[in-house]
Amino acid sequence: MAEITTVSPLAPEHFPELPTIEGVKFAAVEAGVKYANRKDVMLAELAPGTAMAGVFTRSATRSAAVLDCQEKIAQDSDAGAAILVNAGNANAFTGKNGVTSVKAVTDAVAACLDLPETRVFSSSTGVIGEPLPHDRITGKLEELRGKLSSDAIVDAAEAIRTTDTFAKGATRSAEINGQTVKIAGIAKGSGMIAPDMATMLVYIFTDAKIARADLQAMVSSLNNVTFNAITVDSDTSTSDTLLVAATGASGVLVGKEDQTFRTALHEVMLDLAHQVVRDGEGATKFVEINITGAASAEEARTHAMAIANSPLVKTAVAGEDPNWGRIVMAIGKSGAQADRDLLSIRFGDILVAENGWVSPDYKEEAGASYMQQQDITINVDLGLGDAQDTVWTCDLTHGYITINADYRS
Amino acid sequence: MAEITTVSPLAPEHFPELPTIEGVKFAAVEAGVKYANRKDVMLAELAPGTAMAGVFTRSATRSAAVLDCQEKIAQDSDAGAAILVNAGNANAFTGKNGVTSVKAVTDAVAACLDLPETRVFSSSTGVIGEPLPHDRITGKLEELRGKLSSDAIVDAAEAIRTTDTFAKGATRSAEINGQTVKIAGIAKGSGMIAPDMATMLVYIFTDAKIARADLQAMVSSLNNVTFNAITVDSDTSTSDTLLVAATGASGVLVGKEDQTFRTALHEVMLDLAHQVVRDGEGATKFVEINITGAASAEEARTHAMAIANSPLVKTAVAGEDPNWGRIVMAIGKSGAQADRDLLSIRFGDILVAENGWVSPDYKEEAGASYMQQQDITINVDLGLGDAQDTVWTCDLTHGYITINADYRS
Repeated sequence: MAEITTVSPLAPEHFPELPTIEGVKFAAVEAGVKYANRKDVMLAELAPGTAMAGVFTRSATRSAAVLDCQEKIAQDSDAGAAILVNAGNANAFTGKNGVTSVKAVTDAVAACLDLPETRVFSSSTGVIGEPLPHDRITGKLEELRGKLSSDAIVDAAEAIRTTDTFAKGATRSAEINGQTVKIAGIAKGSGMIAPDMATMLVYIFTDAKIARADLQAMVSSLNNVTFNAITVDSDTSTSDTLLVAATGASGVLVGKEDQTFRTALHEVMLDLAHQVVRDGEGATKFVEINITGAASAEEARTHAMAIANSPLVKTAVAGEDPNWGRIVMAIGKSGAQADRDLLSIRFGDILVAENGWVSPDYKEEAGASYMQQQDITINVDLGLGDAQDTVWTCDLTHGYITINADYRS
Repeated sequence: MAEITTVSPLAPEHFPELPTIEGVKFAAVEAGVKYANRKDVMLAELAPGTAMAGVFTRSATRSAAVLDCQEKIAQDSDAGAAILVNAGNANAFTGKNGVTSVKAVTDAVAACLDLPETRVFSSSTGVIGEPLPHDRITGKLEELRGKLSSDAIVDAAEAIRTTDTFAKGATRSAEINGQTVKIAGIAKGSGMIAPDMATMLVYIFTDAKIARADLQAMVSSLNNVTFNAITVDSDTSTSDTLLVAATGASGVLVGKEDQTFRTALHEVMLDLAHQVVRDGEGATKFVEINITGAASAEEARTHAMAIANSPLVKTAVAGEDPNWGRIVMAIGKSGAQADRDLLSIRFGDILVAENGWVSPDYKEEAGASYMQQQDITINVDLGLGDAQDTVWTCDLTHGYITINADYRS
């Protein structure tokens, strides 16, 4: 496992100023789960009446913490809640020990904060196949409780990092009937921890007052066009978790059809999703792929992901090579409907190919110049129908190989 | 596009001694389609009575030559036949020009060799999106005809290379009722040509006497466990072509149930498929992945390909890292059925994980030592049923990035 010493060239300039969300307190401590001399456990305490929604990995080998969250997330409750996250150990593929550790942690948090155990959600990220030393976490709960503060979200964002090269946060607000609701979220993802796969963890908090089922419906729908629309390397974690907590403390009622709130939540989710891509292992380019003219939205997604996951497309982007032939190839192999002679391909606004061949006006120098940008947009119109989709990815570089091919020490 | 100056470390020691197949003659010339100072066009002439079978890319953006072959391959004929292949230009995504070029070439070969045009099969491999200078090929047909020889198969194997690091050939024979039939084949694949995707072309010749439909059925079935069971980088060419020609010159009748011939043909196809993987871009390790205990053969293939195409598994192999957690991850994401607690994973004979956790007897040093071998076997038993599958791949290295991320000149 190579040490990551430099921040991604695609990182935002600084961590954003996140607002206080009434009804949420944060704390983070150094528990030494795996890492020394850094905060590696975070606790979020949520006030009574908080509505929780979540989306989780669909991996068939998902972790014990994910299975536990999935069971709890569908239950209505007026009680308070808590989220506890450790970095350094994913507690995945650890057999029965995995279940034991999740129960030990969530029971202890419930006792410490006087909550029902069914309202404590946990996540673990890091090395897999090693038992979670859960005593190191439970032994720090009193310290965590003592530190709980409504201003400590940045500590939480730091504590959930594994080898992420920067902490990820985003915020938006929505005006609803003259009142303001706030949304703030944090994420980790795309850094690696030996001997493991990338993991994405996302926690979003709002003071909006919204019914649990409405919040869940909104989050599930938005997840499809944000976190499910990004890919770094086509590999899927055993631990991916997105939790959204609405404390209701603003007193502003939000319904499932509220477009102002939905838009703000969408923007926070998309912002965090893009930050995960911008911290993609070895990434030097941020790539948006737009598919239009598809026969269906599902087929548009299939084509978009075929392009986004193609090693040949990703290496071409890394090499600043306007290699549209590889885009044609990826569309051809995707399995979704395409007609070679109806396709058009653009780099940004530059028309590259149409009518089954290179455009007569296309100049290779224009394409080459465009590819030197840090942010690249690939637009493909299939000419078949009205459906469209957008996904985001990064390039595939020597950095990715260095990070993942070095023997773990 | 980086220049490949060294032969793959996984290459065979030398090109095999291929037998003469009665009823087939070969010639190769320097036509300057793209490359200078090397043979880049090959012609194979097949005697009357030759049965032809073929399998082609399923890409939706397949090339004009592939579409032409697909139309012709299903027709019975007692006439002779020919195969013409050029390297350096794939004649793919070239609009109506593509069709015009294929017709110009196949018509000219038909006239030159006095064959019906429906019996001339052509392939093109190399750069895409550039019109094929077909006059350079048709201008060389007289020279090709003059050079036709039953001993020139090695010239043909050389002429179809693009940036393959070695020429690929294989041979087997089968004893049928005390008589011998011979099989010899050549292939190209996994080298790259700017600005293009990898392409695989395979031509196999035998003197067996077998009905066209029987040969096609056998080839299609064997293709699934040979060429369709390999992957270098999950990207699919617009030009993949496998043609098998049975001249019948031995006079030995072969039926579709003949296991001796089927086994020999299977071995030739598998040998060539493995050589394509061994010439995978940047490859330093040859990896066999066996899935057993699957619910169905299709699900076994899905799991095997999820492992074989996972960038995290492939980089771990490159780093000689016995990272079984990434294998668990790939199985989990594949979409096919898996039960974490029934899985077992072995590196060769070394039991690594079982019952949802690392095996108590597994020693990391044993796994690390195993991974230093050039040929690696990953065995996964799913514990669900009786179905199994095997696929082959190579590792993902800095070499792959260097070959594909350098700007084409």
